[in-house]
Amino acid sequence: MTDSTKNAAILLIHCQDKPGIVMTVTEFIHHNGGNILYLDQHVDGGRGIFFMRIAWDLAKFAIQREKIAEYFETLVGSRYQMTSQLHFSDTKPRMAIFVSKMPHCFYDLLARYESGELNVDIPIVISNHDKLRKATERLGITFHCLPISKENKPQKEREQKTLLQKHGIDFIVLARYMQVLSDDFVSDYPQRIINIHHSFLPAFPGGRPYHNAYERGVKIIGATSHYVTAELDAGPIIEQDVVQVSHKDSIEDMIRIGRDLEKIVLARAVRHHVHHDLLVYENCTVVFE
Amino acid sequence: MTDSTKNAAILLIHCQDKPGIVMTVTEFIHHNGGNILYLDQHVDGGRGIFFMRIAWDLAKFAIQREKIAEYFETLVGSRYQMTSQLHFSDTKPRMAIFVSKMPHCFYDLLARYESGELNVDIPIVISNHDKLRKATERLGITFHCLPISKENKPQKEREQKTLLQKHGIDFIVLARYMQVLSDDFVSDYPQRIINIHHSFLPAFPGGRPYHNAYERGVKIIGATSHYVTAELDAGPIIEQDVVQVSHKDSIEDMIRIGRDLEKIVLARAVRHHVHHDLLVYENCTVVFE
Amino acid sequence: MTDSTKNAAILLIHCQDKPGIVMTVTEFIHHNGGNILYLDQHVDGGRGIFFMRIAWDLAKFAIQREKIAEYFETLVGSRYQMTSQLHFSDTKPRMAIFVSKMPHCFYDLLARYESGELNVDIPIVISNHDKLRKATERLGITFHCLPISKENKPQKEREQKTLLQKHGIDFIVLARYMQVLSDDFVSDYPQRIINIHHSFLPAFPGGRPYHNAYERGVKIIGATSHYVTAELDAGPIIEQDVVQVSHKDSIEDMIRIGRDLEKIVLARAVRHHVHHDLLVYENCTVVFE
Amino acid sequence: MTDSTKNAAILLIHCQDKPGIVMTVTEFIHHNGGNILYLDQHVDGGRGIFFMRIAWDLAKFAIQREKIAEYFETLVGSRYQMTSQLHFSDTKPRMAIFVSKMPHCFYDLLARYESGELNVDIPIVISNHDKLRKATERLGITFHCLPISKENKPQKEREQKTLLQKHGIDFIVLARYMQVLSDDFVSDYPQRIINIHHSFLPAFPGGRPYHNAYERGVKIIGATSHYVTAELDAGPIIEQDVVQVSHKDSIEDMIRIGRDLEKIVLARAVRHHVHHDLLVYENCTVVFE
Repeated sequence: MTDSTKNAAILLIHCQDKPGIVMTVTEFIHHNGGNILYLDQHVDGGRGIFFMRIAWDLAKFAIQREKIAEYFETLVGSRYQMTSQLHFSDTKPRMAIFVSKMPHCFYDLLARYESGELNVDIPIVISNHDKLRKATERLGITFHCLPISKENKPQKEREQKTLLQKHGIDFIVLARYMQVLSDDFVSDYPQRIINIHHSFLPAFPGGRPYHNAYERGVKIIGATSHYVTAELDAGPIIEQDVVQVSHKDSIEDMIRIGRDLEKIVLARAVRHHVHHDLLVYENCTVVFE
Repeated sequence: MTDSTKNAAILLIHCQDKPGIVMTVTEFIHHNGGNILYLDQHVDGGRGIFFMRIAWDLAKFAIQREKIAEYFETLVGSRYQMTSQLHFSDTKPRMAIFVSKMPHCFYDLLARYESGELNVDIPIVISNHDKLRKATERLGITFHCLPISKENKPQKEREQKTLLQKHGIDFIVLARYMQVLSDDFVSDYPQRIINIHHSFLPAFPGGRPYHNAYERGVKIIGATSHYVTAELDAGPIIEQDVVQVSHKDSIEDMIRIGRDLEKIVLARAVRHHVHHDLLVYENCTVVFE
Repeated sequence: MTDSTKNAAILLIHCQDKPGIVMTVTEFIHHNGGNILYLDQHVDGGRGIFFMRIAWDLAKFAIQREKIAEYFETLVGSRYQMTSQLHFSDTKPRMAIFVSKMPHCFYDLLARYESGELNVDIPIVISNHDKLRKATERLGITFHCLPISKENKPQKEREQKTLLQKHGIDFIVLARYMQVLSDDFVSDYPQRIINIHHSFLPAFPGGRPYHNAYERGVKIIGATSHYVTAELDAGPIIEQDVVQVSHKDSIEDMIRIGRDLEKIVLARAVRHHVHHDLLVYENCTVVFE
Repeated sequence: MTDSTKNAAILLIHCQDKPGIVMTVTEFIHHNGGNILYLDQHVDGGRGIFFMRIAWDLAKFAIQREKIAEYFETLVGSRYQMTSQLHFSDTKPRMAIFVSKMPHCFYDLLARYESGELNVDIPIVISNHDKLRKATERLGITFHCLPISKENKPQKEREQKTLLQKHGIDFIVLARYMQVLSDDFVSDYPQRIINIHHSFLPAFPGGRPYHNAYERGVKIIGATSHYVTAELDAGPIIEQDVVQVSHKDSIEDMIRIGRDLEKIVLARAVRHHVHHDLLVYENCTVVFE
């Protein structure tokens, strides 16, 4: 699944399912000179909801970029009471990383960034420790150390928000950031904070999933990336993966094995977010691939 | 992915990719009163080919069943030089099983058949041994034992074909049938003979894949279901799956572990075929899910 | 991992880890003329426990079968305060199946039984419905229909126990048996009742795991086989496996996809139990492979 | 599986299987005051070979480190004609990385190195391009750019060997190094050069496995880490893993998806090598876990 065109529009839609939606949307694009590069649609029969991702080349499209959203809403969206998002493939999202001391997800994201695999700008890294300053700054990224305690949390979160605004941040990746964000903070970034949890959710939420997995004697461990919501470890799941373990694996082994899962599962979620591949509906994600 | 409607049309299309295909096809269905139940399309950028599976409810469709193919070809297909197949969800395909002595895939298919999981009729089982006669006949299925030797192969294959025609067979499943079909036989059933091969093709084609896997020291073994073509074990792959092994597994262990893979991978392929979920193009399959 | 010898002893041991255990056990076998066929040991560092499975050929073993347990306990076991079990490879366990209406695990077990893959005797099937009588009886297995209601449960469980004793049953397999066994019943068969649960435990215990998985929007579903204990779906896990799903999969799709997982995961657990491959310790299993 | 003790001996053994080996080896350790930390043994029934990995604490061991190999060979090894290797857990192997331009495996290894996950010293990186100099040198590792052409290959390989000797290199990791090493070079480092091949070997050896996978229409792609031998992509396999793909994945998608596989599979192999977890026998590996 690739839409590598420099200049493409990406539209994500959902609405009550009704006859004629695909036809109407494709007519809108085709009749205005757009060449469809990608189309995927899904009807959730249980929920009765229509979902669609459609991308088209803007080279010969009759409607100006800044007018597309308005025209689409007027001519198509309002007819079906659609909820829609419009993105452009040539706009690079600006991503912030929040990290504590554990570096595996962090290093993995930076390596993808440095090698050009991740189509984002990363202007800033925020941490509650100073440990990863050097690894951040050597790539020319600003590093801010904001140690958080129970007492200073509201104050520090305000400082974080100021930094995020100053750097024009579109979304935040919690790369094993060992702090719980306040509801207030989370509500400012709906579906724009991605977390990696080190278990196969909903099994083992909370702070010690590998210990819990060991005690429960599971034969498989997992990792889950999800959007952060007010309820801890309960937001919409973007990606999950698992790996077999056995009685031979100690908690330390599980932590080690889990690291590789976590970094892959987080990176996949970031990729989906950056490519506008996913929609959230009723705390579930629709991931177009 | 479910189209459980009693009375639906399923259309599989491929052609050179051009602008407007999705719009044109959905207009054809929508303007004639068809309610689209499923739509998936894929453009193979490398090959420049457009693929589509679309299903719609026939309840209020203006065109009679027996005329749909003609109308579609005239009004849409010819315009894009499409290759298309039309199926109806209320038509149960008639399936023959070819089997030798190894019963695991055979038992698994029959259990799915008996429990109603497999939406087919199985009028006949053909084998080169008599071993599985009882297990066949207790489900009311006709069993034919046709022992094949080098000498009598052309004669026996003629008898097989006569039986297949007599029972109105649509497609054949080789459930670990230990005979190689002649090119002549294969060419009579293009994309209508499904085989299960006990390796992760193209690794280890031929008759002793588990022995070869053991000797090569692989850490993963697999199974592959594919359409049979003239070239042995080289037809279009429908499904593959794998399982981890280790140095602890002897050849016998691999054979045992592999049995479970084989039956699952074969059953998935049969399901895709029966549900008209797949297209073949240039010896590859497009499997809509 | 195979010990196919007709006449082998299999010893399962656990105790506090101390120096010299492996040496002492192997000396006991070797000095008495036993040829070791299999040896695997594991030290759980966190719990400080030593686990071992050792199998040896009895052909030239100096100690008579019925005396081995006593000699071992006196000469070795008591020294290390070992908990041990002794089994003989030529003893076929007697297994009962409990089933309701859903036949997939049931058919799968019977197919393995019929093809000789499962090294057990199955004298009896007990069900709360009559649906699978024919499929049972055609293999020469006794079928008992004992419909259970809230009111008659204690009475029916007494009847079940009488039947199990009469048929000399060693262990019970719940092949999607939709009844909760009473604590009383369970306590009569410690580590001798194997259940298949249709989720990746501890996620989604209870009666509607696929519905719960769909609502939570997980990207992977699983199945778990475990020994039954007093607490529902909380017994020691024997085997787990998972499969990827997506937003495209309805609850019905998950149920269908899950069936194949369930039967494989249950069959693997039965195999481990029958081959005396596993030990239970603190609600966890040690599975030697 | 962890032997984190500072001061442990690790012994890897293989020989013809005979009665009494485990007893004899454990007696040697136990009677000389060694506390066994890890023991795993495997008998390959098909090949008739006994394999063992055993580790013990040296704190109270009666035999001096530099004498252990000699004593073991005299007292035990020679009796069974064993092939054995002795390692010490407190010796850090010295590893060289060979890399070309593709950085994903390289970055992943360096991140593990930097975070202390990889118990090695990396004094030197050798490349045929200058691209990754900066990323190497910022970790204080020496970078050597040796561009190789058909003509200068013997000369450049001599220079490589000189560098490897100068830096006391124990083993080499080819992190997507796009050059074929000469037989001469390979024979100098038997079982000491680890390569990552970007396919599920033996499927798709050679230089374009993702292209070949796409053309063959496989539904699963893989990666294989192996020791380098004279025959290209045919050395003993250490680790393999796979991931599902579909018709939706272009060659570029496969390359991208494969990168994450490659780095994980290579890192696992390096870990096994560094921890002395594996033995090679008849072009197969025995990997103790």
